[in-house]
Amino acid sequence: MKMSGGVEWALHCCVVLSRAGAPVPAAKLAELHDVSQSYLAKQLQLLSRAGLVRSTLGQSGGYVLTRATSEITVLDVVEAIDGAQPAFRCTEVRQRGPLAVPAERCDTPCPIARVMDSADRAWRESLRAITVADLVADVGRTTPAETLEAARQWLRA
Amino acid sequence: MKMSGGVEWALHCCVVLSRAGAPVPAAKLAELHDVSQSYLAKQLQLLSRAGLVRSTLGQSGGYVLTRATSEITVLDVVEAIDGAQPAFRCTEVRQRGPLAVPAERCDTPCPIARVMDSADRAWRESLRAITVADLVADVGRTTPAETLEAARQWLRA
Ligand code: FES
Ligand code: FES
Repeated sequence: MKMSGGVEWALHCCVVLSRAGAPVPAAKLAELHDVSQSYLAKQLQLLSRAGLVRSTLGQSGGYVLTRATSEITVLDVVEAIDGAQPAFRCTEVRQRGPLAVPAERCDTPCPIARVMDSADRAWRESLRAITVADLVADVGRTTPAETLEAARQWLRA
Repeated sequence: MKMSGGVEWALHCCVVLSRAGAPVPAAKLAELHDVSQSYLAKQLQLLSRAGLVRSTLGQSGGYVLTRATSEITVLDVVEAIDGAQPAFRCTEVRQRGPLAVPAERCDTPCPIARVMDSADRAWRESLRAITVADLVADVGRTTPAETLEAARQWLRA
């Protein structure tokens, strides 16, 4: 099982956009992360489609978050990039073969599917409990103030 | 993010092997599940490599579980088939680009990676809390006794 590598970039972008405090052009975000513009553009497009970022036009145009970082959960970003489908998908194997359970008796999920679903819920709840604001605060705690200020300057330059 | 489809088959096989109470040939497991022998053989091989099943030789040979179903967690089966690697893998994007955090300051995981790790742990703990014995009991509760007996007969025939 492997999550899209774009999740790591997208979460870092959200933290950067929050810290920048002004629109950041896609090219600048790509340069900051030393990643190809086309790759990052794809992630920004997914964030935009999910309504988490939008791009502003004009001289000082660029990407901004659409709402407060305390209103964007890590799960929002993960689902924007990687989709909201559970990793486990029951294909009703119980309805196959010579001892198949008749379809009319399969109105409740298979016990196996239920277990996988509840693990999926635990995972999502864990990611829903943390917001981009929490990440920003955490990065702030672990990074020297002058580094953060240098970053802000660079982003606005 | 998508889990190997083999997980569903493998968990169903474990439940069946427990109910059979005797070795079940791979061909019979494939017939029962109406799936190709080669596909199921691959899943059985992964279960075997993880030490969860073994095959016995001879006339009435076939696959058996290697230990009590109460000693096999759903996580054991998921990791046997799908691997134990977390879905999110941090590639240290913080160490890239003009504002890179120097490697020597990256001795603790990035806050983003920490959040993803703790969600991964919640997911694994949820799957570790349920054993194949629990699944067997659950299937038993939701299946009529005569169906279960018919299944046992068919598996031993
Ligand atoms: S039928 Fe899909 S998990 Fe059992
Ligand atoms: S550097 Fe990998 S998640 Fe932040």
